Amino acid sequence: MSHKSSEDPKPPPKPALHFASSDLPHIAPYLPSAVVATSSVKPFVTITFATSLDSSLSLAPGTQTALSGPETKAMTHYLRSQHEAILVGVGTAVADNPALNCRIEGVGLEEQPRPVIVDPSGRWLVEEDGKLAECVRLAEHGIGKGPWVLTTLQEDEINHDSRRTLERCGGQYICFPCVPKGSQNQLQWRDIIDTLGRLGVKSAMIEGGGTVINTLLEDRNLNLIDSVIITIAPVWLGEGGVLINPPRRTDEKAQPIPVARLDQVKWKQFGDDVVLCGKIKR
Amino acid sequence: MSHKSSEDPKPPPKPALHFASSDLPHIAPYLPSAVVATSSVKPFVTITFATSLDSSLSLAPGTQTALSGPETKAMTHYLRSQHEAILVGVGTAVADNPALNCRIEGVGLEEQPRPVIVDPSGRWLVEEDGKLAECVRLAEHGIGKGPWVLTTLQEDEINHDSRRTLERCGGQYICFPCVPKGSQNQLQWRDIIDTLGRLGVKSAMIEGGGTVINTLLEDRNLNLIDSVIITIAPVWLGEGGVLINPPRRTDEKAQPIPVARLDQVKWKQFGDDVVLCGKIKR
Repeated sequence: MSHKSSEDPKPPPKPALHFASSDLPHIAPYLPSAVVATSSVKPFVTITFATSLDSSLSLAPGTQTALSGPETKAMTHYLRSQHEAILVGVGTAVADNPALNCRIEGVGLEEQPRPVIVDPSGRWLVEEDGKLAECVRLAEHGIGKGPWVLTTLQEDEINHDSRRTLERCGGQYICFPCVPKGSQNQLQWRDIIDTLGRLGVKSAMIEGGGTVINTLLEDRNLNLIDSVIITIAPVWLGEGGVLINPPRRTDEKAQPIPVARLDQVKWKQFGDDVVLCGKIKR
Repeated sequence: MSHKSSEDPKPPPKPALHFASSDLPHIAPYLPSAVVATSSVKPFVTITFATSLDSSLSLAPGTQTALSGPETKAMTHYLRSQHEAILVGVGTAVADNPALNCRIEGVGLEEQPRPVIVDPSGRWLVEEDGKLAECVRLAEHGIGKGPWVLTTLQEDEINHDSRRTLERCGGQYICFPCVPKGSQNQLQWRDIIDTLGRLGVKSAMIEGGGTVINTLLEDRNLNLIDSVIITIAPVWLGEGGVLINPPRRTDEKAQPIPVARLDQVKWKQFGDDVVLCGKIKR
């Protein structure tokens, strides 16, 4: 198989997905479009992911686990059509090689969300073993937008070919000020969301993986989150999975207290899964 | 305050709970009464508990965390009225000092479930600092049945006064054959369920805590479970909680596989919580 992008045949279309309009009232109040336009430049942020009953995203780090059924898959793609950007962490980008586009029927390139990959130390490869990353390949064929890669690499640290390939499909590297090496969470969520806002992104859907969600659910980041839309599948994955289990919060007496509670809560069954919509309780 | 049981005033009634009959169709197919009588002596086993979104029963071991709302609390008490026994582990019995009775209005003593405490090494105290355990106190006043304590202590290791108090309220110690000290899970679930069956118990509701649920969800015990009824509250408790996260299962190539999946799945919102009913997929 040839992997040079110029010789890469247009990928055969994956089946289009259909999200039943009868299911729309359930999620409509939690979508960016439900918000009356404000002068705020902060993008509307939806946090969304699917877990098992034991709060795992997958069976093990670096693996992809099929959790949710076709009904919630269609809903996720519908959500993508309602946001201007989809953000994932580098772990998910490397493990899943995700398409990060929207497969709802009739969605044109203009309505496709912008893939955003948070990759502080430059682990994600635009091309590996001569094969383009799936979201780059789709962008080259006009089936998705070119991905933005958020990194603390500096301009001169970025591979020239990678940059050229990314820019050719409409993507770009966005370099953040360097932070001390070895520090955790090298990119701060507030900086990421501010940057997306400055680049004109009005709504972003944050899809995972574990590090992304767990750090976003830290106390200091909760006010960045506008909506929460979670799928839970009726399965236990067991010990060793990638847990959503945010850092502990304590009160002034150092006693543990809940990290966050939702209000304006709606649960609805889709197939065998449940979808929870809510807002962070302030 | 005097704590001698003979001087102990009848406890003021806690408010009776009401479970709306309109909610009954949701859970009816998962109740023991839905099963056509069989000659099996194995009790019908329902596993039931409430977790946070991050699969925690409580904020920390040994603490009780209010998770679910009044609607699901009423449902739990209704479930208790539909089972002949309620089983909890010693950790829950010690941490929560639970009443383990049913507060649905109009439920008489005959319909009260039998409290069963799994206490392999005899940690649970019938009376502490002159104060009776709550389920014993209620039994003394005829508001609940006397608890059964399942233990590997031998007859001569049981405190004489404790035994007398327990038997006076209609409870008993049930001694299992001694197992090597230091081994985990000193009581095997199959032995526990068999014993309850031999004692005439036709249905048991297993309520927690973490060790009880996680060991019941081990592969070898799954066929003991007839129904699963779980409440999930829209809150994240964060790291350090008591997780439901059963031991990992692997396939013949030592690759992790899901521990268990449910089928015949129904999800329904009660207040802000969701209740999941299902059967273990065989």
